[in-house]
Amino acid sequence: MKRLKCIVAYDGTHFSGYQVQPNKRTVQLEIEAVLEKMHNKKVPIYASGRTDTNVHAQGQVIHFDTNLNIPCDKWKKALNSMLPDDIVMKNVCEVDAHFHARYDVTSKEYRYHILRGEDRNPFTRSYAYHYPYPLDYSKMKKAITYLLGTHDFTSFCSARTEVEDKIRTIYKIDMYEENSQLVFRFVGSGFLYNMVRILVGTLLEVGQGRIEPDAIKDILESKSRPRAGKTAPSQGLYLWRVFYDN
Amino acid sequence: MKRLKCIVAYDGTHFSGYQVQPNKRTVQLEIEAVLEKMHNKKVPIYASGRTDTNVHAQGQVIHFDTNLNIPCDKWKKALNSMLPDDIVMKNVCEVDAHFHARYDVTSKEYRYHILRGEDRNPFTRSYAYHYPYPLDYSKMKKAITYLLGTHDFTSFCSARTEVEDKIRTIYKIDMYEENSQLVFRFVGSGFLYNMVRILVGTLLEVGQGRIEPDAIKDILESKSRPRAGKTAPSQGLYLWRVFYDN
Repeated sequence: MKRLKCIVAYDGTHFSGYQVQPNKRTVQLEIEAVLEKMHNKKVPIYASGRTDTNVHAQGQVIHFDTNLNIPCDKWKKALNSMLPDDIVMKNVCEVDAHFHARYDVTSKEYRYHILRGEDRNPFTRSYAYHYPYPLDYSKMKKAITYLLGTHDFTSFCSARTEVEDKIRTIYKIDMYEENSQLVFRFVGSGFLYNMVRILVGTLLEVGQGRIEPDAIKDILESKSRPRAGKTAPSQGLYLWRVFYDN
Repeated sequence: MKRLKCIVAYDGTHFSGYQVQPNKRTVQLEIEAVLEKMHNKKVPIYASGRTDTNVHAQGQVIHFDTNLNIPCDKWKKALNSMLPDDIVMKNVCEVDAHFHARYDVTSKEYRYHILRGEDRNPFTRSYAYHYPYPLDYSKMKKAITYLLGTHDFTSFCSARTEVEDKIRTIYKIDMYEENSQLVFRFVGSGFLYNMVRILVGTLLEVGQGRIEPDAIKDILESKSRPRAGKTAPSQGLYLWRVFYDN
Protein backbone atom coordinates (compact mmCIF):
# COMPACT_ATOMS: atom_id res chain seq x y z
CA MET A 1 0.00 0.00 0.00
CA LYS A 2 1.32 3.43 -0.84
CA ARG A 3 -0.04 6.93 -0.36
CA LEU A 4 -0.04 9.32 -3.33
CA LYS A 5 -0.24 13.09 -3.17
CA CYS A 6 -1.62 14.84 -6.27
CA ILE A 7 -1.65 18.49 -7.30
CA VAL A 8 -4.84 19.05 -9.27
CA ALA A 9 -6.03 21.92 -11.48
CA TYR A 10 -9.65 22.27 -12.50
CA ASP A 11 -11.93 24.68 -14.27
CA GLY A 12 -14.83 25.00 -11.82
CA THR A 13 -17.34 26.28 -14.39
CA HIS A 14 -19.14 23.00 -14.96
CA PHE A 15 -18.82 21.55 -11.45
CA SER A 16 -21.11 21.87 -8.45
CA GLY A 17 -17.97 22.47 -6.44
CA TYR A 18 -15.34 20.03 -5.22
CA GLN A 19 -17.19 17.81 -2.77
CA VAL A 20 -19.44 14.86 -3.64
CA GLN A 21 -23.16 15.68 -3.41
CA PRO A 22 -26.12 13.59 -4.52
CA ASN A 23 -26.91 13.92 -8.25
CA LYS A 24 -24.34 16.64 -8.88
CA ARG A 25 -21.22 16.67 -11.03
CA THR A 26 -18.34 17.40 -8.68
CA VAL A 27 -14.54 17.24 -8.89
CA GLN A 28 -14.31 14.57 -6.18
CA LEU A 29 -16.90 12.44 -7.99
CA GLU A 30 -14.95 12.54 -11.27
CA ILE A 31 -11.60 11.69 -9.70
CA GLU A 32 -13.06 8.89 -7.55
CA ALA A 33 -14.82 7.47 -10.63
CA VAL A 34 -11.45 7.16 -12.41
CA LEU A 35 -9.81 5.57 -9.37
CA GLU A 36 -12.70 3.11 -9.02
CA LYS A 37 -12.25 2.03 -12.65
CA MET A 38 -8.53 1.50 -12.08
CA HIS A 39 -8.90 -0.37 -8.76
CA ASN A 40 -12.21 -2.18 -9.34
CA LYS A 41 -13.31 -0.82 -5.97
CA LYS A 42 -14.08 2.49 -4.32
CA VAL A 43 -10.97 4.50 -3.43
CA PRO A 44 -11.75 7.54 -1.26
CA ILE A 45 -9.76 10.72 -1.86
CA TYR A 46 -8.99 13.44 0.69
CA ALA A 47 -8.56 17.07 -0.36
CA SER A 48 -6.99 20.11 1.33
CA GLY A 49 -10.51 21.52 1.52
CA ARG A 50 -13.61 22.15 -0.58
CA THR A 51 -14.14 24.68 -3.31
CA ASP A 52 -17.57 26.04 -4.28
CA THR A 53 -19.50 25.91 -7.54
CA ASN A 54 -17.65 27.86 -10.30
CA VAL A 55 -14.51 28.24 -8.16
CA HIS A 56 -11.31 27.14 -9.92
CA ALA A 57 -8.14 25.45 -8.72
CA GLN A 58 -4.60 25.70 -10.03
CA GLY A 59 -3.15 23.79 -7.10
CA GLN A 60 -5.72 21.80 -5.15
CA VAL A 61 -4.04 18.92 -3.27
CA ILE A 62 -5.55 15.48 -2.69
CA HIS A 63 -4.24 12.19 -1.38
CA PHE A 64 -5.33 8.57 -1.65
CA ASP A 65 -4.00 5.11 -0.91
CA THR A 66 -3.40 2.50 -3.57
CA ASN A 67 -2.07 -1.03 -3.87
CA LEU A 68 -1.68 -0.81 -7.65
CA ASN A 69 1.79 -1.58 -8.85
CA ILE A 70 2.21 1.48 -11.10
CA PRO A 71 5.51 3.39 -11.01
CA CYS A 72 5.02 6.90 -9.65
CA ASP A 73 5.95 8.65 -12.90
CA LYS A 74 3.25 6.71 -14.81
CA TRP A 75 0.45 7.68 -12.45
CA LYS A 76 0.07 11.20 -13.78
CA LYS A 77 -0.29 10.04 -17.39
CA ALA A 78 -2.67 7.25 -16.43
CA LEU A 79 -4.97 9.59 -14.48
CA ASN A 80 -4.87 12.37 -17.09
CA SER A 81 -5.77 9.97 -19.87
CA MET A 82 -8.98 9.04 -18.01
CA LEU A 83 -10.00 12.32 -16.39
CA PRO A 84 -12.43 14.72 -18.13
CA ASP A 85 -10.85 17.70 -19.87
CA ASP A 86 -11.72 20.20 -17.14
CA ILE A 87 -9.56 18.37 -14.55
CA VAL A 88 -5.83 17.77 -14.89
CA MET A 89 -3.25 16.24 -12.57
CA LYS A 90 -0.22 18.52 -12.53
CA ASN A 91 1.88 16.36 -10.26
CA VAL A 92 1.61 12.95 -8.60
CA CYS A 93 4.16 11.71 -6.08
CA GLU A 94 4.44 9.14 -3.31
CA VAL A 95 4.34 10.50 0.23
CA ASP A 96 4.76 9.18 3.74
CA ALA A 97 1.83 7.04 4.92
CA HIS A 98 1.09 9.66 7.60
CA PHE A 99 0.67 12.56 5.17
CA HIS A 100 -2.85 14.04 5.13
CA ALA A 101 -3.91 16.52 2.44
CA ARG A 102 -6.22 18.35 4.84
CA TYR A 103 -4.79 18.04 8.34
CA ASP A 104 -1.19 18.77 7.34
CA VAL A 105 -1.89 22.05 5.53
CA THR A 106 0.32 24.84 6.87
CA SER A 107 -1.03 27.62 4.65
CA LYS A 108 -3.00 28.29 1.50
CA GLU A 109 -2.86 30.75 -1.35
CA TYR A 110 -6.01 31.97 -3.10
CA ARG A 111 -6.14 34.41 -5.99
CA TYR A 112 -9.05 36.49 -7.16
CA HIS A 113 -9.18 37.90 -10.70
CA ILE A 114 -11.11 41.03 -11.67
CA LEU A 115 -11.51 42.25 -15.24
CA ARG A 116 -11.09 46.02 -15.37
CA GLY A 117 -12.16 48.34 -18.17
CA GLU A 118 -15.55 49.16 -19.61
CA ASP A 119 -16.01 46.16 -21.92
CA ARG A 120 -17.05 42.67 -20.94
CA ASN A 121 -14.73 39.96 -22.30
CA PRO A 122 -16.46 36.82 -23.60
CA PHE A 123 -13.25 34.81 -23.14
CA THR A 124 -12.80 35.56 -19.44
CA ARG A 125 -16.46 35.57 -18.39
CA SER A 126 -16.03 32.35 -16.39
CA TYR A 127 -12.56 33.22 -15.08
CA ALA A 128 -12.72 36.80 -13.82
CA TYR A 129 -15.33 39.12 -12.31
CA HIS A 130 -15.98 42.12 -14.55
CA TYR A 131 -15.86 45.27 -12.44
CA PRO A 132 -15.83 48.36 -14.71
CA TYR A 133 -16.25 51.01 -12.00
CA PRO A 134 -13.51 53.39 -10.80
CA LEU A 135 -11.40 52.16 -7.86
CA ASP A 136 -9.07 54.07 -5.56
CA TYR A 137 -6.19 51.62 -5.28
CA SER A 138 -4.42 53.60 -2.54
CA LYS A 139 -7.46 53.31 -0.26
CA MET A 140 -7.64 49.57 -0.96
CA LYS A 141 -3.97 49.14 -0.11
CA LYS A 142 -4.50 50.96 3.16
CA ALA A 143 -7.47 48.71 4.00
CA ILE A 144 -5.30 45.67 3.34
CA THR A 145 -2.91 46.69 6.15
CA TYR A 146 -5.77 46.25 8.66
CA LEU A 147 -6.59 42.77 7.37
CA LEU A 148 -3.08 41.36 7.66
CA GLY A 149 -2.16 39.35 10.75
CA THR A 150 -4.21 37.29 13.18
CA HIS A 151 -7.85 38.26 13.64
CA ASP A 152 -11.27 36.83 14.38
CA PHE A 153 -12.74 36.88 10.84
CA THR A 154 -16.40 36.32 11.84
CA SER A 155 -17.37 39.47 9.88
CA PHE A 156 -15.78 37.98 6.77
CA CYS A 157 -17.36 34.55 6.96
CA SER A 158 -20.62 33.29 5.50
CA ALA A 159 -23.26 32.73 8.21
CA ARG A 160 -23.72 29.27 6.69
CA THR A 161 -20.60 27.86 8.37
CA GLU A 162 -20.32 25.26 11.08
CA VAL A 163 -16.78 26.19 12.10
CA GLU A 164 -16.52 27.46 15.68
CA ASP A 165 -13.05 28.97 15.74
CA LYS A 166 -12.97 31.91 13.35
CA ILE A 167 -9.49 33.11 14.17
CA ARG A 168 -7.19 32.98 11.15
CA THR A 169 -3.89 34.55 10.17
CA ILE A 170 -3.42 36.34 6.84
CA TYR A 171 0.29 36.49 6.04
CA LYS A 172 0.10 38.36 2.78
CA ILE A 173 -2.28 40.22 0.48
CA ASP A 174 -0.81 41.39 -2.83
CA MET A 175 -2.72 43.48 -5.32
CA TYR A 176 -1.41 43.89 -8.87
CA GLU A 177 -2.52 44.38 -12.47
CA GLU A 178 -1.88 41.74 -15.11
CA ASN A 179 -3.39 41.62 -18.65
CA SER A 180 -6.17 44.16 -17.94
CA GLN A 181 -7.01 42.25 -14.77
CA LEU A 182 -6.66 43.29 -11.16
CA VAL A 183 -5.39 40.31 -9.20
CA PHE A 184 -5.59 39.81 -5.43
CA ARG A 185 -3.26 37.24 -3.91
CA PHE A 186 -4.07 36.01 -0.40
CA VAL A 187 -1.78 33.78 1.66
CA GLY A 188 -3.04 32.67 5.04
CA SER A 189 -3.10 29.93 7.64
CA GLY A 190 -6.57 29.01 6.44
CA PHE A 191 -9.70 30.65 5.11
CA LEU A 192 -13.30 30.46 6.34
CA TYR A 193 -16.34 29.77 4.18
CA ASN A 194 -16.58 32.54 1.52
CA MET A 195 -13.85 34.51 3.36
CA VAL A 196 -11.77 35.41 0.29
CA ARG A 197 -14.85 36.45 -1.69
CA ILE A 198 -16.09 38.66 1.20
CA LEU A 199 -12.62 40.17 1.61
CA VAL A 200 -12.59 41.03 -2.11
CA GLY A 201 -16.15 42.37 -2.01
CA THR A 202 -15.21 44.58 0.93
CA LEU A 203 -12.01 45.84 -0.70
CA LEU A 204 -14.03 46.78 -3.81
CA GLU A 205 -16.40 48.83 -1.63
CA VAL A 206 -13.36 50.51 -0.07
CA GLY A 207 -12.06 51.27 -3.58
CA GLN A 208 -15.45 52.77 -4.48
CA GLY A 209 -15.40 54.98 -1.38
CA ARG A 210 -18.39 53.30 0.28
CA ILE A 211 -16.28 51.96 3.17
CA GLU A 212 -13.34 53.93 4.57
CA PRO A 213 -10.06 51.99 5.02
CA ASP A 214 -10.00 52.77 8.76
CA ALA A 215 -13.44 51.18 9.15
CA ILE A 216 -11.93 47.73 8.50
CA LYS A 217 -10.68 47.68 12.11
CA ASP A 218 -14.22 48.26 13.42
CA ILE A 219 -15.70 45.73 11.00
CA LEU A 220 -13.32 43.06 12.31
CA GLU A 221 -14.06 43.95 15.94
CA SER A 222 -17.83 44.00 15.41
CA LYS A 223 -17.83 40.29 14.40
CA SER A 224 -20.87 41.13 12.29
CA ARG A 225 -21.10 39.77 8.74
CA PRO A 226 -23.50 42.52 7.53
CA ARG A 227 -20.89 45.19 8.35
CA ALA A 228 -18.50 43.85 5.70
CA GLY A 229 -19.01 44.15 1.93
CA LYS A 230 -20.89 41.90 -0.47
CA THR A 231 -19.59 38.44 -1.39
CA ALA A 232 -17.73 38.79 -4.70
CA PRO A 233 -18.85 36.31 -7.43
CA SER A 234 -17.39 32.82 -7.45
CA GLN A 235 -15.97 32.72 -10.98
CA GLY A 236 -13.04 35.05 -10.15
CA LEU A 237 -11.69 32.81 -7.36
CA TYR A 238 -8.83 30.31 -7.65
CA LEU A 239 -7.39 27.97 -5.01
CA TRP A 240 -3.86 28.67 -6.20
CA ARG A 241 -1.55 26.67 -3.95
CA VAL A 242 -1.56 24.62 -0.76
CA PHE A 243 1.52 24.59 1.44
CA TYR A 244 2.78 21.77 3.67
CA ASP A 245 5.91 21.36 5.73
CA ASN A 246 8.45 20.02 3.20
CA MET B 1 -31.74 55.50 -42.06
CA LYS B 2 -28.13 55.00 -41.08
CA ARG B 3 -25.70 52.14 -41.54
CA LEU B 4 -23.74 50.92 -38.50
CA LYS B 5 -20.51 48.92 -38.59
CA CYS B 6 -19.77 46.81 -35.50
CA ILE B 7 -16.62 45.01 -34.39
CA VAL B 8 -17.76 41.91 -32.53
CA ALA B 9 -15.90 39.44 -30.30
CA TYR B 10 -17.36 36.06 -29.41
CA ASP B 11 -16.40 32.87 -27.67
CA GLY B 12 -17.42 30.24 -30.23
CA THR B 13 -17.61 27.37 -27.72
CA HIS B 14 -21.36 27.34 -27.30
CA PHE B 15 -22.33 28.39 -30.84
CA SER B 16 -23.04 26.30 -33.91
CA GLY B 17 -20.94 28.82 -35.79
CA TYR B 18 -21.76 32.32 -36.95
CA GLN B 19 -24.48 31.82 -39.53
CA VAL B 20 -28.18 31.23 -38.81
CA GLN B 21 -29.24 27.59 -39.18
CA PRO B 22 -32.54 25.95 -38.21
CA ASN B 23 -32.78 25.01 -34.51
CA LYS B 24 -29.18 25.97 -33.73
CA ARG B 25 -27.75 28.64 -31.45
CA THR B 26 -25.63 30.88 -33.68
CA VAL B 27 -23.97 34.27 -33.32
CA GLN B 28 -26.08 35.81 -36.08
CA LEU B 29 -29.26 34.53 -34.44
CA GLU B 30 -28.38 36.11 -31.08
CA ILE B 31 -27.46 39.50 -32.54
CA GLU B 32 -30.52 39.61 -34.81
CA ALA B 33 -32.73 38.69 -31.83
CA VAL B 34 -31.45 41.74 -29.92
CA LEU B 35 -31.96 44.01 -32.94
CA GLU B 36 -35.48 42.65 -33.47
CA LYS B 37 -36.35 43.49 -29.85
CA MET B 38 -35.01 47.01 -30.27
CA HIS B 39 -36.69 47.68 -33.64
CA ASN B 40 -39.89 45.63 -33.25
CA LYS B 41 -39.10 44.09 -36.63
CA LYS B 42 -36.49 41.86 -38.23
CA VAL B 43 -33.20 43.65 -38.95
CA PRO B 44 -30.83 41.55 -41.07
CA ILE B 45 -27.11 41.77 -40.32
CA TYR B 46 -24.26 41.17 -42.76
CA ALA B 47 -20.91 39.81 -41.61
CA SER B 48 -17.44 39.76 -43.17
CA GLY B 49 -17.86 35.99 -43.45
CA ARG B 50 -18.88 32.92 -41.47
CA THR B 51 -17.04 31.18 -38.70
CA ASP B 52 -17.52 27.51 -37.85
CA THR B 53 -18.70 25.79 -34.66
CA ASN B 54 -16.21 26.43 -31.81
CA VAL B 55 -14.29 29.04 -33.79
CA HIS B 56 -13.78 32.33 -31.94
CA ALA B 57 -13.69 35.95 -33.04
CA GLN B 58 -11.83 38.90 -31.60
CA GLY B 59 -12.70 41.17 -34.51
CA GLN B 60 -15.59 39.90 -36.62
CA VAL B 61 -17.22 42.79 -38.49
CA ILE B 62 -20.94 43.14 -39.22
CA HIS B 63 -23.16 45.90 -40.56
CA PHE B 64 -26.87 46.67 -40.41
CA ASP B 65 -29.23 49.53 -41.19
CA THR B 66 -31.34 51.25 -38.55
CA ASN B 67 -33.80 54.10 -38.29
CA LEU B 68 -33.58 54.24 -34.49
CA ASN B 69 -32.63 57.62 -33.17
CA ILE B 70 -29.85 56.47 -30.84
CA PRO B 71 -26.58 58.45 -30.74
CA CYS B 72 -23.69 56.39 -32.04
CA ASP B 73 -21.84 56.29 -28.72
CA LYS B 74 -24.89 54.79 -26.96
CA TRP B 75 -25.31 51.93 -29.43
CA LYS B 76 -22.44 49.86 -28.00
CA LYS B 77 -23.79 50.02 -24.44
CA ALA B 78 -27.34 49.30 -25.57
CA LEU B 79 -26.31 46.21 -27.54
CA ASN B 80 -23.93 44.90 -24.87
CA SER B 81 -26.58 45.19 -22.18
CA MET B 82 -28.85 42.87 -24.18
CA LEU B 83 -26.41 40.43 -25.78
CA PRO B 84 -25.55 37.12 -24.07
CA ASP B 85 -22.24 37.05 -22.19
CA ASP B 86 -20.37 35.14 -24.90
CA ILE B 87 -20.82 37.96 -27.44
CA VAL B 88 -19.56 41.51 -26.97
CA MET B 89 -19.57 44.57 -29.22
CA LYS B 90 -16.12 46.13 -29.10
CA ASN B 91 -16.92 49.07 -31.34
CA VAL B 92 -19.97 50.50 -33.08
CA CYS B 93 -19.74 53.39 -35.54
CA GLU B 94 -21.75 54.93 -38.36
CA VAL B 95 -20.47 54.28 -41.87
CA ASP B 96 -21.28 55.35 -45.39
CA ALA B 97 -24.51 53.83 -46.73
CA HIS B 98 -22.45 51.99 -49.37
CA PHE B 99 -20.21 50.18 -46.88
CA HIS B 100 -20.62 46.40 -46.95
CA ALA B 101 -19.06 44.20 -44.24
CA ARG B 102 -18.46 41.36 -46.69
CA TYR B 103 -17.92 42.84 -50.15
CA ASP B 104 -15.58 45.62 -48.98
CA VAL B 105 -13.12 43.38 -47.12
CA THR B 106 -9.57 44.01 -48.31
CA SER B 107 -7.87 41.44 -46.09
CA LYS B 108 -8.36 39.33 -42.99
CA GLU B 109 -6.23 38.21 -40.08
CA TYR B 110 -6.74 34.83 -38.44
CA ARG B 111 -4.77 33.46 -35.49
CA TYR B 112 -4.39 29.89 -34.39
CA HIS B 113 -3.35 29.00 -30.82
CA ILE B 114 -1.58 25.79 -29.86
CA LEU B 115 -0.85 24.76 -26.28
CA ARG B 116 2.66 23.32 -26.05
CA GLY B 117 4.08 21.19 -23.24
CA GLU B 118 3.10 17.80 -21.92
CA ASP B 119 0.15 18.77 -19.70
CA ARG B 120 -3.38 19.57 -20.78
CA ASN B 121 -4.67 22.86 -19.40
CA PRO B 122 -8.32 22.84 -18.24
CA PHE B 123 -8.53 26.63 -18.62
CA THR B 124 -7.51 26.75 -22.28
CA ARG B 125 -9.20 23.56 -23.47
CA SER B 126 -11.75 25.55 -25.54
CA TYR B 127 -9.26 28.20 -26.69
CA ALA B 128 -6.16 26.37 -27.87
CA TYR B 129 -5.30 22.99 -29.44
CA HIS B 130 -3.07 20.93 -27.15
CA TYR B 131 -0.16 19.57 -29.19
CA PRO B 132 2.46 18.06 -26.85
CA TYR B 133 4.70 16.48 -29.53
CA PRO B 134 8.14 17.77 -30.56
CA LEU B 135 8.18 20.28 -33.43
CA ASP B 136 11.06 21.47 -35.58
CA TYR B 137 10.30 25.18 -35.81
CA SER B 138 12.99 25.83 -38.43
CA LYS B 139 11.37 23.37 -40.84
CA MET B 140 7.99 24.97 -40.23
CA LYS B 141 9.41 28.43 -40.94
CA LYS B 142 10.88 27.15 -44.18
CA ALA B 143 7.52 25.65 -45.19
CA ILE B 144 5.86 29.01 -44.54
CA THR B 145 8.00 30.67 -47.22
CA TYR B 146 6.35 28.45 -49.85
CA LEU B 147 2.85 29.37 -48.65
CA LEU B 148 3.31 33.13 -48.86
CA GLY B 149 2.12 34.96 -51.94
CA THR B 150 -0.58 34.21 -54.50
CA HIS B 151 -1.46 30.56 -55.08
CA ASP B 152 -4.30 28.27 -55.99
CA PHE B 153 -5.11 26.88 -52.51
CA THR B 154 -7.32 23.97 -53.66
CA SER B 155 -5.10 21.56 -51.68
CA PHE B 156 -5.76 23.59 -48.53
CA CYS B 157 -9.52 23.85 -48.86
CA SER B 158 -12.24 21.55 -47.57
CA ALA B 159 -13.88 19.58 -50.39
CA ARG B 160 -17.21 20.81 -48.98
CA THR B 161 -16.88 24.25 -50.55
CA GLU B 162 -18.91 25.80 -53.33
CA VAL B 163 -16.37 28.49 -54.17
CA GLU B 164 -14.98 28.18 -57.72
CA ASP B 165 -12.01 30.52 -57.60
CA LYS B 166 -9.48 29.11 -55.13
CA ILE B 167 -6.72 31.61 -55.79
CA ARG B 168 -5.86 33.63 -52.68
CA THR B 169 -2.94 35.74 -51.54
CA ILE B 170 -1.29 35.23 -48.16
CA TYR B 171 0.60 38.38 -47.21
CA LYS B 172 2.01 37.23 -43.92
CA ILE B 173 2.42 34.20 -41.68
CA ASP B 174 4.01 34.85 -38.28
CA MET B 175 4.84 32.12 -35.82
CA TYR B 176 5.69 32.99 -32.22
CA GLU B 177 5.45 31.71 -28.66
CA GLU B 178 3.32 33.46 -26.04
CA ASN B 179 2.35 32.11 -22.57
CA SER B 180 3.29 28.46 -23.33
CA GLN B 181 1.34 28.71 -26.57
CA LEU B 182 2.55 28.61 -30.14
CA VAL B 183 0.62 31.20 -32.12
CA PHE B 184 0.25 31.36 -35.91
CA ARG B 185 -0.84 34.67 -37.39
CA PHE B 186 -2.16 34.64 -40.97
CA VAL B 187 -2.95 37.76 -42.97
CA GLY B 188 -4.38 37.27 -46.43
CA SER B 189 -6.72 38.59 -49.09
CA GLY B 190 -9.22 35.96 -48.06
CA PHE B 191 -9.34 32.38 -46.83
CA LEU B 192 -11.17 29.36 -48.20
CA TYR B 193 -13.34 27.00 -46.16
CA ASN B 194 -11.12 25.40 -43.45
CA MET B 195 -8.02 26.87 -45.13
CA VAL B 196 -6.36 28.19 -41.96
CA ARG B 197 -7.01 24.94 -40.10
CA ILE B 198 -5.56 22.87 -42.97
CA LEU B 199 -2.53 25.19 -43.19
CA VAL B 200 -1.92 24.72 -39.47
CA GLY B 201 -2.44 20.96 -39.66
CA THR B 202 0.06 20.79 -42.52
CA LEU B 203 2.63 22.95 -40.73
CA LEU B 204 2.36 20.66 -37.70
CA GLU B 205 3.11 17.65 -39.91
CA VAL B 206 6.12 19.54 -41.31
CA GLY B 207 7.26 20.23 -37.74
CA GLN B 208 6.90 16.54 -36.96
CA GLY B 209 9.00 15.59 -40.00
CA ARG B 210 6.16 13.81 -41.80
CA ILE B 211 6.11 16.36 -44.64
CA GLU B 212 9.31 18.03 -45.88
CA PRO B 213 9.19 21.84 -46.25
CA ASP B 214 10.06 21.62 -49.95
CA ALA B 215 7.03 19.37 -50.51
CA ILE B 216 4.71 22.34 -49.90
CA LYS B 217 5.41 23.53 -53.43
CA ASP B 218 4.27 20.19 -54.88
CA ILE B 219 1.24 20.04 -52.59
CA LEU B 220 0.08 23.45 -53.85
CA GLU B 221 0.67 22.45 -57.48
CA SER B 222 -1.13 19.12 -57.10
CA LYS B 223 -4.41 20.86 -56.19
CA SER B 224 -5.21 17.75 -54.18
CA ARG B 225 -6.65 18.12 -50.69
CA PRO B 226 -5.44 14.67 -49.48
CA ARG B 227 -1.82 15.70 -50.15
CA ALA B 228 -1.96 18.39 -47.43
CA GLY B 229 -2.09 17.71 -43.68
CA LYS B 230 -5.06 17.08 -41.42
CA THR B 231 -7.50 19.84 -40.52
CA ALA B 232 -6.45 21.24 -37.12
CA PRO B 233 -9.26 21.38 -34.52
CA SER B 234 -11.63 24.34 -34.52
CA GLN B 235 -11.17 25.55 -30.93
CA GLY B 236 -7.69 27.02 -31.60
CA LEU B 237 -8.91 29.33 -34.36
CA TYR B 238 -9.73 33.06 -34.03
CA LEU B 239 -10.98 35.48 -36.66
CA TRP B 240 -8.71 38.23 -35.33
CA ARG B 241 -9.27 41.25 -37.54
CA VAL B 242 -10.95 42.29 -40.77
CA PHE B 243 -9.41 45.06 -42.84
CA TYR B 244 -11.19 47.58 -45.10
CA ASP B 245 -9.97 50.58 -47.06
CA ASN B 246 -9.99 53.43 -44.52
